[in-house]
Amino acid sequence: MKALSSIAPIEMAHGAGGKTSRRLIENVILPAFANPALEALSDAAILTIGGMRLATTADGFVVKPLQFPGGSIGTLAVHGTVNDLAVSGARPLALLATMILEAGLPGNILQREIEAMAEACRHAGVQIVGGDTKVVEHGMADGMYISTFGIGIVDERLSLSAHAVRPGDRVLLSGAIGDHGITILLARGELDLESNVRSDTRPLTPFVDALCERAAPGLRWMRDPTRGGVATSLNELAREAGIAVALNEHAIPVHDDVRGACEILGLDPLHIANEGQLIAIVAPEYAEEAIAALQSVAGGEEACVIGEIRETPVATVLTETSYGGSRVVDTLVGDPLPRIC
Amino acid sequence: MKALSSIAPIEMAHGAGGKTSRRLIENVILPAFANPALEALSDAAILTIGGMRLATTADGFVVKPLQFPGGSIGTLAVHGTVNDLAVSGARPLALLATMILEAGLPGNILQREIEAMAEACRHAGVQIVGGDTKVVEHGMADGMYISTFGIGIVDERLSLSAHAVRPGDRVLLSGAIGDHGITILLARGELDLESNVRSDTRPLTPFVDALCERAAPGLRWMRDPTRGGVATSLNELAREAGIAVALNEHAIPVHDDVRGACEILGLDPLHIANEGQLIAIVAPEYAEEAIAALQSVAGGEEACVIGEIRETPVATVLTETSYGGSRVVDTLVGDPLPRIC
Repeated sequence: MKALSSIAPIEMAHGAGGKTSRRLIENVILPAFANPALEALSDAAILTIGGMRLATTADGFVVKPLQFPGGSIGTLAVHGTVNDLAVSGARPLALLATMILEAGLPGNILQREIEAMAEACRHAGVQIVGGDTKVVEHGMADGMYISTFGIGIVDERLSLSAHAVRPGDRVLLSGAIGDHGITILLARGELDLESNVRSDTRPLTPFVDALCERAAPGLRWMRDPTRGGVATSLNELAREAGIAVALNEHAIPVHDDVRGACEILGLDPLHIANEGQLIAIVAPEYAEEAIAALQSVAGGEEACVIGEIRETPVATVLTETSYGGSRVVDTLVGDPLPRIC
Repeated sequence: MKALSSIAPIEMAHGAGGKTSRRLIENVILPAFANPALEALSDAAILTIGGMRLATTADGFVVKPLQFPGGSIGTLAVHGTVNDLAVSGARPLALLATMILEAGLPGNILQREIEAMAEACRHAGVQIVGGDTKVVEHGMADGMYISTFGIGIVDERLSLSAHAVRPGDRVLLSGAIGDHGITILLARGELDLESNVRSDTRPLTPFVDALCERAAPGLRWMRDPTRGGVATSLNELAREAGIAVALNEHAIPVHDDVRGACEILGLDPLHIANEGQLIAIVAPEYAEEAIAALQSVAGGEEACVIGEIRETPVATVLTETSYGGSRVVDTLVGDPLPRIC
């Protein structure tokens, strides 16, 4: 285990899903809890019980503000967990949730969030079967924090793994990126920007179902690019699989409002969090069918191929620029958008 | 669903595990998420998957201070979840944990708590297979909050239920009560009391294993009396089973320091939280063997019969007083000891 100084003190970037988060996990958490399920560092841990592959996942939610265009902390808490199961190839079976509430939280806000969770559960076809509620003093929890846990059964047709990814495979994206992160940033009202952007928060199960129906044998790996964005998810893949990801920057859908906000703020849309998009790595012979599958689902109309897997440069994500050159797309560094989920 | 006014605003007592918590759950949470697994309101939700009974449970931890004699938030987070599985008759398979960290938390405190969790896992024979870390601004999370999720397989020999409880059954307790709650209260340093009391936090799996080995056919119902204490757990049983619980107050083990602190503070030890005790309702013909089983486990030396189940008065817990009369022991009301877990 590394010296204490390597992790002291905790800063916002430790929770941003980028390089600092990864250092915390690799230097402090993994050595303490060493076991194969955890070390996979995927969205969900796969446990084999009685011959079944069960996927389990846990997510904390501290989004600020609690409510924003397109959703709220309750919606996010359900979708985030459902989606971690979905991209692991698992059908969600049950969720549990713990709520840490601030004394003084108006009852109608709590009730609104509980109803938002219930509605998101109905939409995603899953039930909340248990949970816990704790209350802390006024001023201590920003209204409420939610942690959600999910359990699901992995689809028998799938065996997803970074190690299954091969040069020539296609990189598919379900739709436009950055909507969620920019929505949260604007909802805080600290920037004087007008926009109609809304969070993309939604369950990814319909996308995964459609992919499984039409392209299961070609599916290699999936991820929902939340904190750290598409760039961070693909860097994790590139490092784990020992391959290169070559992106066609022009192909990546970004809504105008998001592109504009990113230009003003000096942010890369590839680093902005999404809560309703899916990246799938698909064998080339299944790519066309997989895109058709994604486009057949409501909300998947913008699905497209955004790049391909190459042999080199190993552990690298590249994108071709507008000038014909290429640039390295790194993992998120620091925390430009704290508390977006 | 009840009117908003019935839950507004949130107060500390909503998290205390007593009457106010129950109103929040019954009036707001259950109507929104209505499903049989949740409505059982037990320590763990039982899901039947592929013929196996899986127990799942979720707990939030906001204990203050983070460290106290006998344990810390990390120890509690593991034991609390392992114990909810154990008293549901399940062998813990895997845990997941989310941490909400406050920016500025010294790295050595985080590392200490992660090591405390890892050590508690080794002791309880369970692994942490996944999790999530979020960071909030300084001042927003009292150092750290932890939520833990557990999954286990229910022992085939058991079918525990409040509805299995019969008049004449014995009420067994694994040891002295109130140690945890009083330890936390004193650890805050707000009271000028000297004491050697230590939290009883520990895994209950050895107790449950011993009971299963020697008295499985006689086991009706188990619970770990945490928030709200023995009084609240037994009132929940009495109400759900439609029976009376008659306690022999003299038989209930309470350490002198705990009794003294309770007398000074006007608290009833039966309302104080425990983190390493187990209540078991056992058929009379198995009571002796079950006590021997509990006493055979380290820490179970004080295990004893503290009362019995009667037909009437329905949904009531009674205790005989030192003067030969009897008094009703109610569920916890209010929150005399906030944030004890």
